Amino acid sequence: MRSTVFFYVSYTLCLCLGLLCVLFVSCWSSHWRGGFSWDGSALEFNWHPVLMVSGLVVLYGNAAVVYRVPFTWKQRKHTWKLVHAGLMLLALLLAVLGLCAVFDFHRGFNITDLYSLHSWVGICTVTMFAFQWILGLAGFLFPCSPLWFRSGLKPVHIWLGKTILILGLIACISGINEKLLLTLNGSSGEPYNSLPVEAKFANSLGILIVAFGLVVFGILSTKKWRRPETDRESVHVSMDAMVIIFLFINTTLKSGLPYHKQLF
Amino acid sequence: MRSTVFFYVSYTLCLCLGLLCVLFVSCWSSHWRGGFSWDGSALEFNWHPVLMVSGLVVLYGNAAVVYRVPFTWKQRKHTWKLVHAGLMLLALLLAVLGLCAVFDFHRGFNITDLYSLHSWVGICTVTMFAFQWILGLAGFLFPCSPLWFRSGLKPVHIWLGKTILILGLIACISGINEKLLLTLNGSSGEPYNSLPVEAKFANSLGILIVAFGLVVFGILSTKKWRRPETDRESVHVSMDAMVIIFLFINTTLKSGLPYHKQLF
Repeated sequence: MRSTVFFYVSYTLCLCLGLLCVLFVSCWSSHWRGGFSWDGSALEFNWHPVLMVSGLVVLYGNAAVVYRVPFTWKQRKHTWKLVHAGLMLLALLLAVLGLCAVFDFHRGFNITDLYSLHSWVGICTVTMFAFQWILGLAGFLFPCSPLWFRSGLKPVHIWLGKTILILGLIACISGINEKLLLTLNGSSGEPYNSLPVEAKFANSLGILIVAFGLVVFGILSTKKWRRPETDRESVHVSMDAMVIIFLFINTTLKSGLPYHKQLF
Repeated sequence: MRSTVFFYVSYTLCLCLGLLCVLFVSCWSSHWRGGFSWDGSALEFNWHPVLMVSGLVVLYGNAAVVYRVPFTWKQRKHTWKLVHAGLMLLALLLAVLGLCAVFDFHRGFNITDLYSLHSWVGICTVTMFAFQWILGLAGFLFPCSPLWFRSGLKPVHIWLGKTILILGLIACISGINEKLLLTLNGSSGEPYNSLPVEAKFANSLGILIVAFGLVVFGILSTKKWRRPETDRESVHVSMDAMVIIFLFINTTLKSGLPYHKQLF
């Protein structure tokens, strides 16, 4: 009971921090950076931080912890696999759209693509995310995926999932830092090192993103909050295992028979 | 056996990547940034990336995985606790020295301290690291630390340990990105977006740091590689527990006696 209460406190914190991250990044882009458009102008760039923070961090983090919510444990795991995959697909689409915004803006202003360390980490993150989503679909949602593939994939999927979250945090923080250095130092207004209100606000956004990531990480790392395996899932796994064992015994027995009898 | 071989492959990769990180960051500071000195000049700043990468990432990561090395499992855990604490203290001292280098450089050039998001994340990381070290010393090395404190502290220590590693990675990547933006764009040479050799080299250093961090993370996340509890440790824990139970029973029994008899 105490563990469940503590989970819901952490989960509420995760939701509130996520909401604050989206509000802060949208406010930064609209209030200080002039708002949004999709015409290759500087305003198109403003979609980049909003979409990356919303997709790669906030939606990704929420999709990662969806299995941990205790009220979902009594429902079919397959339903929540679909919710997890659906939210992750939405997060991936937002991140890809965020990349399109920055590439389009670069094309409009003849700026080189993918030169900074931030962009190298960012592009690696989105590529790994796409790879993870396709692998997850093949392993956990395709009904014909074999048991050995699914069980071997699970620890890799979990490790890669956490890795993408860490890379997403690194990409977002280095990106906010880069944007502030380039815009505040390049403008006629107050430079970054005099800490104008915009700098304080965007730095706070960075701290909120880190805090959100660490709460998600805390939820994912707590063993007690893992979804327990239900009977239905055990039966499903047992059935898969039984089919494998049956096929193995059948093949082993038949291998001792003459060739024309092995065919039946 | 297969698990042990796979551990040593991962551990060798961790050592090699760590060594490469230190070599790359030293080479960047000495070859492209002019070398080292401790006189408040720009050359003093060059200690900052070297000390932070070596302390906050490479030494920290190696100190974190020290319990996982199978050959240490037959030796006393207390010895390896001292090695772990000693390496962490060295890592902390290097990080603090790295902070001194940048503050000293800022004082020499009248640059504001702690204005960028990189510096906000960095200072939080070192503060949390110092806090974690003191808490770890009090909980796991002071012989008089009670069992309830030690057992309650362990999951917090593990979670905070991973958190500091993630924050260290974020601080290093955003720091390298910041340094390249400020120095390459501010110099008369090739700007960052034309990707001169220095930029490619320092970006590669960033990717090496991320790769090192993720390998350390992989080692820490693999359950099979956790140090098994030995009989001696179980006995130690049982002895602690027995002392607590004895004191509890003794106090409970005595509380029923007249006050003058409770004293004996």
